[in-house]
Amino acid sequence: MAKLKWGMIGGGEGSQIGPAHRLGAQADGLFEFVAGALDHRPDAGRAYAQRLGVAADRAYGDWQEMLAGEKDRDDRIDLVTVATPNATHFEITKAFLEAGFNVLCEKPMTMTVEEGEEIVRVAGKSGKVMAVNYAYSAYPMVRQARAMVRAGEIGKVRLVVSNFSHGHHADAGDADNPRVRWRYDPVMAGVSGQFADCGIHAMHMASFICDDEVASLSADFASTIASRTLEDDAMVNFRMSGGTVGRLWTSSVAIGRQHGFEIQIFGETGGLKWHAEQPNQLIYTPLGGRTQIMEKGEGGLHEDAQRLSRVAIAHPEGFPLAVANIYCDLADAIRGETRDGLPGAAAGVRSMAAVHTAVASAKDGGAWVDARPPMFR
Amino acid sequence: MAKLKWGMIGGGEGSQIGPAHRLGAQADGLFEFVAGALDHRPDAGRAYAQRLGVAADRAYGDWQEMLAGEKDRDDRIDLVTVATPNATHFEITKAFLEAGFNVLCEKPMTMTVEEGEEIVRVAGKSGKVMAVNYAYSAYPMVRQARAMVRAGEIGKVRLVVSNFSHGHHADAGDADNPRVRWRYDPVMAGVSGQFADCGIHAMHMASFICDDEVASLSADFASTIASRTLEDDAMVNFRMSGGTVGRLWTSSVAIGRQHGFEIQIFGETGGLKWHAEQPNQLIYTPLGGRTQIMEKGEGGLHEDAQRLSRVAIAHPEGFPLAVANIYCDLADAIRGETRDGLPGAAAGVRSMAAVHTAVASAKDGGAWVDARPPMFR
Amino acid sequence: MAKLKWGMIGGGEGSQIGPAHRLGAQADGLFEFVAGALDHRPDAGRAYAQRLGVAADRAYGDWQEMLAGEKDRDDRIDLVTVATPNATHFEITKAFLEAGFNVLCEKPMTMTVEEGEEIVRVAGKSGKVMAVNYAYSAYPMVRQARAMVRAGEIGKVRLVVSNFSHGHHADAGDADNPRVRWRYDPVMAGVSGQFADCGIHAMHMASFICDDEVASLSADFASTIASRTLEDDAMVNFRMSGGTVGRLWTSSVAIGRQHGFEIQIFGETGGLKWHAEQPNQLIYTPLGGRTQIMEKGEGGLHEDAQRLSRVAIAHPEGFPLAVANIYCDLADAIRGETRDGLPGAAAGVRSMAAVHTAVASAKDGGAWVDARPPMFR
Amino acid sequence: MAKLKWGMIGGGEGSQIGPAHRLGAQADGLFEFVAGALDHRPDAGRAYAQRLGVAADRAYGDWQEMLAGEKDRDDRIDLVTVATPNATHFEITKAFLEAGFNVLCEKPMTMTVEEGEEIVRVAGKSGKVMAVNYAYSAYPMVRQARAMVRAGEIGKVRLVVSNFSHGHHADAGDADNPRVRWRYDPVMAGVSGQFADCGIHAMHMASFICDDEVASLSADFASTIASRTLEDDAMVNFRMSGGTVGRLWTSSVAIGRQHGFEIQIFGETGGLKWHAEQPNQLIYTPLGGRTQIMEKGEGGLHEDAQRLSRVAIAHPEGFPLAVANIYCDLADAIRGETRDGLPGAAAGVRSMAAVHTAVASAKDGGAWVDARPPMFR
Repeated sequence: MAKLKWGMIGGGEGSQIGPAHRLGAQADGLFEFVAGALDHRPDAGRAYAQRLGVAADRAYGDWQEMLAGEKDRDDRIDLVTVATPNATHFEITKAFLEAGFNVLCEKPMTMTVEEGEEIVRVAGKSGKVMAVNYAYSAYPMVRQARAMVRAGEIGKVRLVVSNFSHGHHADAGDADNPRVRWRYDPVMAGVSGQFADCGIHAMHMASFICDDEVASLSADFASTIASRTLEDDAMVNFRMSGGTVGRLWTSSVAIGRQHGFEIQIFGETGGLKWHAEQPNQLIYTPLGGRTQIMEKGEGGLHEDAQRLSRVAIAHPEGFPLAVANIYCDLADAIRGETRDGLPGAAAGVRSMAAVHTAVASAKDGGAWVDARPPMFR
Repeated sequence: MAKLKWGMIGGGEGSQIGPAHRLGAQADGLFEFVAGALDHRPDAGRAYAQRLGVAADRAYGDWQEMLAGEKDRDDRIDLVTVATPNATHFEITKAFLEAGFNVLCEKPMTMTVEEGEEIVRVAGKSGKVMAVNYAYSAYPMVRQARAMVRAGEIGKVRLVVSNFSHGHHADAGDADNPRVRWRYDPVMAGVSGQFADCGIHAMHMASFICDDEVASLSADFASTIASRTLEDDAMVNFRMSGGTVGRLWTSSVAIGRQHGFEIQIFGETGGLKWHAEQPNQLIYTPLGGRTQIMEKGEGGLHEDAQRLSRVAIAHPEGFPLAVANIYCDLADAIRGETRDGLPGAAAGVRSMAAVHTAVASAKDGGAWVDARPPMFR
Repeated sequence: MAKLKWGMIGGGEGSQIGPAHRLGAQADGLFEFVAGALDHRPDAGRAYAQRLGVAADRAYGDWQEMLAGEKDRDDRIDLVTVATPNATHFEITKAFLEAGFNVLCEKPMTMTVEEGEEIVRVAGKSGKVMAVNYAYSAYPMVRQARAMVRAGEIGKVRLVVSNFSHGHHADAGDADNPRVRWRYDPVMAGVSGQFADCGIHAMHMASFICDDEVASLSADFASTIASRTLEDDAMVNFRMSGGTVGRLWTSSVAIGRQHGFEIQIFGETGGLKWHAEQPNQLIYTPLGGRTQIMEKGEGGLHEDAQRLSRVAIAHPEGFPLAVANIYCDLADAIRGETRDGLPGAAAGVRSMAAVHTAVASAKDGGAWVDARPPMFR
Repeated sequence: MAKLKWGMIGGGEGSQIGPAHRLGAQADGLFEFVAGALDHRPDAGRAYAQRLGVAADRAYGDWQEMLAGEKDRDDRIDLVTVATPNATHFEITKAFLEAGFNVLCEKPMTMTVEEGEEIVRVAGKSGKVMAVNYAYSAYPMVRQARAMVRAGEIGKVRLVVSNFSHGHHADAGDADNPRVRWRYDPVMAGVSGQFADCGIHAMHMASFICDDEVASLSADFASTIASRTLEDDAMVNFRMSGGTVGRLWTSSVAIGRQHGFEIQIFGETGGLKWHAEQPNQLIYTPLGGRTQIMEKGEGGLHEDAQRLSRVAIAHPEGFPLAVANIYCDLADAIRGETRDGLPGAAAGVRSMAAVHTAVASAKDGGAWVDARPPMFR
């Protein structure tokens, strides 16, 4: 099968996200990296792309140039990845969709709910694949959890508890550290700090596994380091459309937690637990029975879990290959196969709605608010 | 040193709590079990007490008889443990305090805040030792955590996350199981189910380790099993007097969690984590450093942690010996030594205030309320 | 039920083992501490016993005095615990058995195989209860493991891997530390260091759970700290009478292992794993199935596991209560109930034979030797 | 930087090892897959290679054809990976080395010690990069462990304990399962079963981290399933040239262990522990200090650990990226950078010597034997 052609916007030299996407796209030999506008400095971007093997005429100076250059080629890219600063995602994603490209956008998909709804509409009209990189959802055992819930293996879900708490911004002395400071500054980060940065991964995961949507929420935000305007710790209680109760804690001052992204799902007849630091296991307890350790690669897993693992049981696969799984699903989707595990524009706008309504609730003393984007009410 | 004389009310044949207290009182040879009114059926109680070695004349039919029998003896009991049904704690505890006895009362100390405040006053006037059996607080590594916080070893505490979630009431088919049903029935359990049963352990622990008090809270309660009136899952956000942010999740439908009582304390310069299923370890991470595993029995622990462990490092000590530690502190306190780790009447009434205000907040859509007993405002 | 009368030899002030036995004997209210010869200094022993509540006439100066004092009393002790220095166990145990007392002896029961065989004979003739304090075997989940093996729940046992490795003697600078030095000095410790100290716990556990005996072995001993004559690290391969293959590693220089006593049992149809630092869980994997976490206190455990746990599931019980379980079985055995989980004189002599034959094998380049005491060949 | 050209022999459709190598070579964009002889059925191999994007003229029918086709091309491959059945490794590897190609060979490098010595000589003469795919050694935290040992951070190594035990061949009913049976049949597997299959990974790891070589060993082999000729469980005691004591247990009947590859290294001043199922952590305990959890991606790691990790701390990387790390080192080595972490021909022949001498020792009742290849004595 010929490789698909792939281009990237952003992810220039020295970024973490660039290598992650290049690995994700190329690891399984599904995509060929043929075009890029990698840097906000045109020359640097062109040079870097060429060093990475992109032909000179497809090493672009900015995204507009890339759009113009690619859109009329016969061998134009099959997929573009948007990994630019958050505030530019909307404009770029929209433009490429309208030009008929398939798009993978980094999270957050947009900065506002209105923009998010616009992307939903544009993507729908385009008929193209539109995905958001909620890569954690592509771990095999997360897919297994979702499949178990869908198959009724833990009964109706009563409760989901989803946390994403780390301690990497706990040093008050980092007040002037530019890698940290911007996240808590509304001018640069928008309306929310830690909840928008990490919390929405946890919220997306809850929706993803429960196969349901957040309907309403109540939030408590705290800036535990005084110099911060935006929250560095948040608790969000929510209810899903189907009645599931949700609890979500996210923090960046939890010293000792390296990557405390953990989700627990409790149904009428069973419970599940998954932790991003040990992603190859899924802990399952049937009602009245013993806790069992499910392993990536064991016999009898659901199709999505089997399909997205590469090596034998107990050989761990990690985060870069979860990103690669997104690209596996993208390759299939581009070729016309249904891959409903791919987080799309609806997931993107729902996240934005959660951020904005959580901010509003926290300001209003934890009042319960409708968390759905207007278009889905 | 002569043993202290000890009596017990409640904890009759077949109860779990009776053996736990007898073990706690006798394990270290500090107390001699000499009096009891163990059962609501007078004859059964008298007979059982005698089978346990209590002399016939001190094997009482009920607590009133025991109070009358003990109060004028020269060799009267040094301590009475109250382990009767919850609704009777107030009356019995008050009566024995007024008669000049030292009292250890099971939790909850009372059913209402008013009763709790009355116990505070009576205990204060009596000059006697009044303790509530928050036994988890007597684990050596919990005492170590408290001592570290007090000594400033993790800096000012920014955030405490305290969970107590299990799945032992997750079977909807238990609707008629008498051991479960009463807990969610307001006629029998009072205003709160799971929060009053387990959540207040988590809240007491947060206060205990942080050495601070809950000032205000906002609650979200859910009855995830439809037949229940009272909550089986609750989330409580709170603020302590010193500004610490608190998060508390408690559940009885968390299938797979056996005893999910876990607390994390995050300060300016370090984080701590403790789990009731592995109580002999305390996980400590200094800001910017590596996570370390502290062990009961290691060199250099604070006095309270050293004093309350019996066997060498890595030989686990469990819950019954945490109860025994309460009795160790009681023996010392009765003999006049200051043991400020003993949870007293103030802790008891604060728990009651938390229960009642959390119920009120949950009914009022999560509104923030003052969580302090009126007497402490 | 009246308490049984109990006395102790050794375990004087400042020892660790004294409090452990007093707690074990008294925790469940089964034994009353009425006699003791607690110290090799007669006056100190008498005074300490009285401080612990022993009557003056039963606070003895040495074991001979205690034997003389107790043997003709009508209310003589029902059980004597021997917790003196190792080299004295044989003489004291033998004398008390011959005088018709029930005896619990600390490990090692004797210093030589010949002495061990003598105890087997004397105990058999006496008709009294003779037990050795292999307390780890009394943890509920160890009893559960043994019961599962006996019931065929993991099929015929193919392989047992039993390790007891810690790092508490890893400091070469401890060469002159008297608490450490004697263990590696043949004048004081006998023929073996770490294997005799900890390894035989692991070997007893293997025999206990597999319900089989070590038939032959091959050993590799090492003194990894040059100043030591006796081994501080040992590997013993063995075969049981029923053909089970055994692997046993023990070390005192394993820096970072606090109490690395862990056993794995692999049968035709399942595997088990137990760790002394988390004694309330037993890990079970059926052939072709998922690993399951069994919990002390869960429904459906075998009788020995249920009987020896005191508090509800997920409330940990630790080492002191494992010792107490030995006393529970002793109390039952003294009253005539069969408690075949009690390690007896045969277990004691088999351990001695293992020590002596392992030493011989190690000296002979790992040659395989018959590990059975002559009387059991 | 232009991609290096890469070809593969073996790893045809349906194999596990083919995708693992293709991912390893391509994930970081370092190699381009341009030639292959992927299947023992020439037509199937040619067709599959073309489906994977190899040009028709470089999709070869067998390795001889590939050698002939590649050796005179100007754009000949920079590296060939040999992933054919074990018995063919020697012949193919030797031929490509002699023709001046860089080679990565799957383990075992050869079937005999003599062949292994021949590869050492041929590789030396060729001046080409010759590597063996001991991929576990390329995990960042394994490299960190090795660097710590080299830097003296745990002092002189006294003891190394390296286990690789799983339960995937524990079903006696698999006697006729072709995927399992051949491993225990000397006609197909050679002189050793489980030790040659998994044990040598554990032995290589011990040598790799300790930066020392196995000098002598004593082995105990067992076939716990009666129908097997070769061992399915083995214990090997060894001594390294520098005096380090070694313990190595390997099993394929350890039901419940999924991938029990775990190594512990104990030095004079510290201990290390690493587990292949949680490869992103390294557990470190300094003498007299607390156990610490080191994380891939934390600050201050040694160069080899930093260089070979791709994503931020606490984002796990798994086995396929350990293979990719081998390819990273290969790319560097081919370009002339010293990468002494690459396992080479000497490691390959030492493994063979360990297998053959362990077999001899086990047959001779555990006699200690010189484990070095003759050329290194």
